Amino acid sequence: MANSKYEYVKSFEQPDTLLPNTWIVVRIDGRGFHKLSDRYAFKKPNDRRALDLMNAAAVEVMKDLPDLAIAYGVSDEYSFVFHPSCELFERRSAKLVTTIVSTFTAHYIYLWGTYFTENPLQPPYLPSFDGRAVVYPAMGNLRDYMSWRQVDCHINNLYNTTFWTMVQQGGMSNTDAERELQGTVSSDKNEILFTRFGINYNNEDEMYKKGSVIYRQYQLEDAKPASNPSIEQDEGSSVPEAISKSQQEKLKKLRRKAQVVVNHVDIIKDEFWERRPWILSGRPGKLPEA
Amino acid sequence: MANSKYEYVKSFEQPDTLLPNTWIVVRIDGRGFHKLSDRYAFKKPNDRRALDLMNAAAVEVMKDLPDLAIAYGVSDEYSFVFHPSCELFERRSAKLVTTIVSTFTAHYIYLWGTYFTENPLQPPYLPSFDGRAVVYPAMGNLRDYMSWRQVDCHINNLYNTTFWTMVQQGGMSNTDAERELQGTVSSDKNEILFTRFGINYNNEDEMYKKGSVIYRQYQLEDAKPASNPSIEQDEGSSVPEAISKSQQEKLKKLRRKAQVVVNHVDIIKDEFWERRPWILSGRPGKLPEA
Amino acid sequence: MANSKYEYVKSFEQPDTLLPNTWIVVRIDGRGFHKLSDRYAFKKPNDRRALDLMNAAAVEVMKDLPDLAIAYGVSDEYSFVFHPSCELFERRSAKLVTTIVSTFTAHYIYLWGTYFTENPLQPPYLPSFDGRAVVYPAMGNLRDYMSWRQVDCHINNLYNTTFWTMVQQGGMSNTDAERELQGTVSSDKNEILFTRFGINYNNEDEMYKKGSVIYRQYQLEDAKPASNPSIEQDEGSSVPEAISKSQQEKLKKLRRKAQVVVNHVDIIKDEFWERRPWILSGRPGKLPEA
Amino acid sequence: MANSKYEYVKSFEQPDTLLPNTWIVVRIDGRGFHKLSDRYAFKKPNDRRALDLMNAAAVEVMKDLPDLAIAYGVSDEYSFVFHPSCELFERRSAKLVTTIVSTFTAHYIYLWGTYFTENPLQPPYLPSFDGRAVVYPAMGNLRDYMSWRQVDCHINNLYNTTFWTMVQQGGMSNTDAERELQGTVSSDKNEILFTRFGINYNNEDEMYKKGSVIYRQYQLEDAKPASNPSIEQDEGSSVPEAISKSQQEKLKKLRRKAQVVVNHVDIIKDEFWERRPWILSGRPGKLPEA
Repeated sequence: MANSKYEYVKSFEQPDTLLPNTWIVVRIDGRGFHKLSDRYAFKKPNDRRALDLMNAAAVEVMKDLPDLAIAYGVSDEYSFVFHPSCELFERRSAKLVTTIVSTFTAHYIYLWGTYFTENPLQPPYLPSFDGRAVVYPAMGNLRDYMSWRQVDCHINNLYNTTFWTMVQQGGMSNTDAERELQGTVSSDKNEILFTRFGINYNNEDEMYKKGSVIYRQYQLEDAKPASNPSIEQDEGSSVPEAISKSQQEKLKKLRRKAQVVVNHVDIIKDEFWERRPWILSGRPGKLPEA
Repeated sequence: MANSKYEYVKSFEQPDTLLPNTWIVVRIDGRGFHKLSDRYAFKKPNDRRALDLMNAAAVEVMKDLPDLAIAYGVSDEYSFVFHPSCELFERRSAKLVTTIVSTFTAHYIYLWGTYFTENPLQPPYLPSFDGRAVVYPAMGNLRDYMSWRQVDCHINNLYNTTFWTMVQQGGMSNTDAERELQGTVSSDKNEILFTRFGINYNNEDEMYKKGSVIYRQYQLEDAKPASNPSIEQDEGSSVPEAISKSQQEKLKKLRRKAQVVVNHVDIIKDEFWERRPWILSGRPGKLPEA
Repeated sequence: MANSKYEYVKSFEQPDTLLPNTWIVVRIDGRGFHKLSDRYAFKKPNDRRALDLMNAAAVEVMKDLPDLAIAYGVSDEYSFVFHPSCELFERRSAKLVTTIVSTFTAHYIYLWGTYFTENPLQPPYLPSFDGRAVVYPAMGNLRDYMSWRQVDCHINNLYNTTFWTMVQQGGMSNTDAERELQGTVSSDKNEILFTRFGINYNNEDEMYKKGSVIYRQYQLEDAKPASNPSIEQDEGSSVPEAISKSQQEKLKKLRRKAQVVVNHVDIIKDEFWERRPWILSGRPGKLPEA
Repeated sequence: MANSKYEYVKSFEQPDTLLPNTWIVVRIDGRGFHKLSDRYAFKKPNDRRALDLMNAAAVEVMKDLPDLAIAYGVSDEYSFVFHPSCELFERRSAKLVTTIVSTFTAHYIYLWGTYFTENPLQPPYLPSFDGRAVVYPAMGNLRDYMSWRQVDCHINNLYNTTFWTMVQQGGMSNTDAERELQGTVSSDKNEILFTRFGINYNNEDEMYKKGSVIYRQYQLEDAKPASNPSIEQDEGSSVPEAISKSQQEKLKKLRRKAQVVVNHVDIIKDEFWERRPWILSGRPGKLPEA
């Protein structure tokens, strides 16, 4: 065909397959959300509508891609995690990342009006997201990644809650509040909130303090007694089990049947993971009895 | 800070900077648009609303990213091109690709109702797009990439036009039409259209035959007389000119001032490029006189 | 300095850092050794001088790079393994690979005359090696890589031994021997060797049957009783322990003190690894008592 | 075959094909040559035996790989250049780099005794080299790379010549010489050499001042008159010409017939390249008449 003369350009595409047997984390971030949150009058320090919208869009991504093991969101970012056994799109990085970014964006835009009933979108200033993929070789690295994001959530939320309380309730200027908070540690901020404003930070909304975890729901298992988690290089052998195409389809169906839930809990300690072993094992659990 | 214990996970992110002084092409493709076009009853072989919507979303991307030199779209795909001198996002591949994919998706979803007035979106079946970046070292490679896409447009449109005319006007079954077209060349299809249905393919809509080109409009220049295009490796030296930050900003502003236009013309021959030298040079032309 | 005008070319170098917390395997292969073995009259199926030379060069590489955990060689190839905690050359792939290839080549050429006393090198036909790096996320993958090479050694050596015995002792032509061996399994070849030539393959040289393993020698530990090796994804957490520069230097010194030994043993079963836990743990054992 | 169980480990190898239609530069550097030059008593600032040995090894690499277009060496480094049309080893980076590093090392070790007749190699302290590949999209970038190395050669040699003359003939300590040279420009160093030691730097050995260029010799062409070199992005189209396998072999043979020459000349100005157009064109010239 006449096209063959130009078709050589296809050979310039470089492969971007992610290393097999590693955890794939796709993190997306809102583009210019600082400015955007002003334009659409997001409430400070947390706008429930904005967070609910983030979660709703992420739930749709989880439903659309049954291969996803878990997702974690805070502020204008969301991390989506694929299990090491995942073979979706032959693990091509750009394909995985753009599919998630685009699906997320589509639902975010579509659902905007449901959450922001009074603030319609003002083109061309539409929200958008960028994203990237990172792979982690060991389960410990993945757990640490998740812990990193949740600790970050805590640190930022404590700061923002204190800062905005000082400004909104304390009548301070942004600059003054910022200056006073410089160099303070967590206990200082808790103290400011409590003594000056009678606010017990522990009573703040769990979603604000812990962020949002999304996963498929199966029957919870008992937590293990006093575990002694190894923080060493994995010792297990790791032949990726040969899973037949038909079995993969079966697993996919099982995953589609499970309910996708949003939760605001600690994912740093072992308990969360021990009671939901299907997340790290990559094998669906038992569906909860009706 | 307490976070430092987990922060090491950041070091697993691998750099994905694209080679300097190369053309960057980001191509996006509709995900599962075959199925989607059925769900939303796209007209065959071409649905003007769908193509107009693609173009409208692409125009918004061009406006949002003044660094883009040109874009070309056909069917459910769009290619966006950055000049070799582009330093946007430090040329990080994932950042460039996801920004384009997300911005495009956002506008596509937002504008859907404007073009598909009778077919509202049916969640969770929302349109989405994947994307990838490819770099081309020489201008000739970039030109060949663009030619490749436009030849593809022509080949597919001629086939689809003939096929659907045989089915829709000729009352043939899909299978019969497909069988008859197997092995035919362009002239055969032109012949079928003309003798059986009185259709002169040349009179078909330019957008369907040529696809859509989007670029910034400056004053057209005269086409060169009988050029003798070299098809060899470039012979020019290529020190990327050191452009100061302030000059980059100035160029950006000039680009923002230019009108973004959609056109349906031949981009394989030299004329298109010679009359619009700013596209390949990366330097804004003169704004057209009012 | 005047050089600054050209120095921008440095920015075209792309990073090639290998993923952290993964096993790094650098495998080198003789270039054109089929032809080379003819030129220098290597004995078939195994030339002890050639293998001893390979091992001697590999020992020097192990001594030169204390970061290396283990090496395995067969025929004209050698695999060198770095532990996941290795930070040598910031894990830059090209640096690691070329250092090993060059050091190996240097000693191979230098020592040639010691092993091939009657066949001096004939320039320009000098032996050379190419190489590549592959990373493995889990210890199980690394073990499987090592098993893969040793099984390959076994398969090839059984075939070659049978083939060359049929030719050299049986007087068959290469073509006839090849044809007869087509489609045979291991037991067939053992049978041919035993019934026709009175050769018990089990009595062949261990080096030919098992290849060569090189590692640092510490006090052997007892093998574990009936282990039940997991073949799943690792379950261990995996914070790379922060090792101070000074401690790294100390470990390096300890490694330099250990004797580098060459062995011809099974590395597929667990026993080899259980008795030498320092190889997989990355922590030097106790030096053997004098 | 039994091996299949482990063979999956092959899939972890990641492709490393270099971008088509780009110049490939493989630069190798001596490992720890500062220490090595002390051990083997290299003369300062330049040891002719060491440089001749570098050149001799590089000539062998050029002969071994007819695909190489040109090489440039200075001190303990050598850059080898492949033309954009090169398809050797399918342009796999590790393969190209290690082949050059290993071939170079082999000849360097083999020829050592020819050049260092009084300083035999002292194992285990053998010279070795590391290497890396960098690609350049435009001819201008490649020319700039070569200029960068030659300017570097000039700067370093002028410094070293002045420094060692001050120490060796002027009786200064290393520290004093270093301190005096701090902040000086070229003219200052020329002045020191001339007024204090009666040395005209221009009369120094061309090899020391210019480094060494290696290429295949064909009939020289006339230099162009007053060229006006473009320093812009290339304007030429660049379809890589489809070269048949048989034609590639023919070109290879032509290249093998050409003499490989070592030269010490300016490669920054255009003249060198204009008179030897075969280097940048990738097409062998006419063999010089006998």
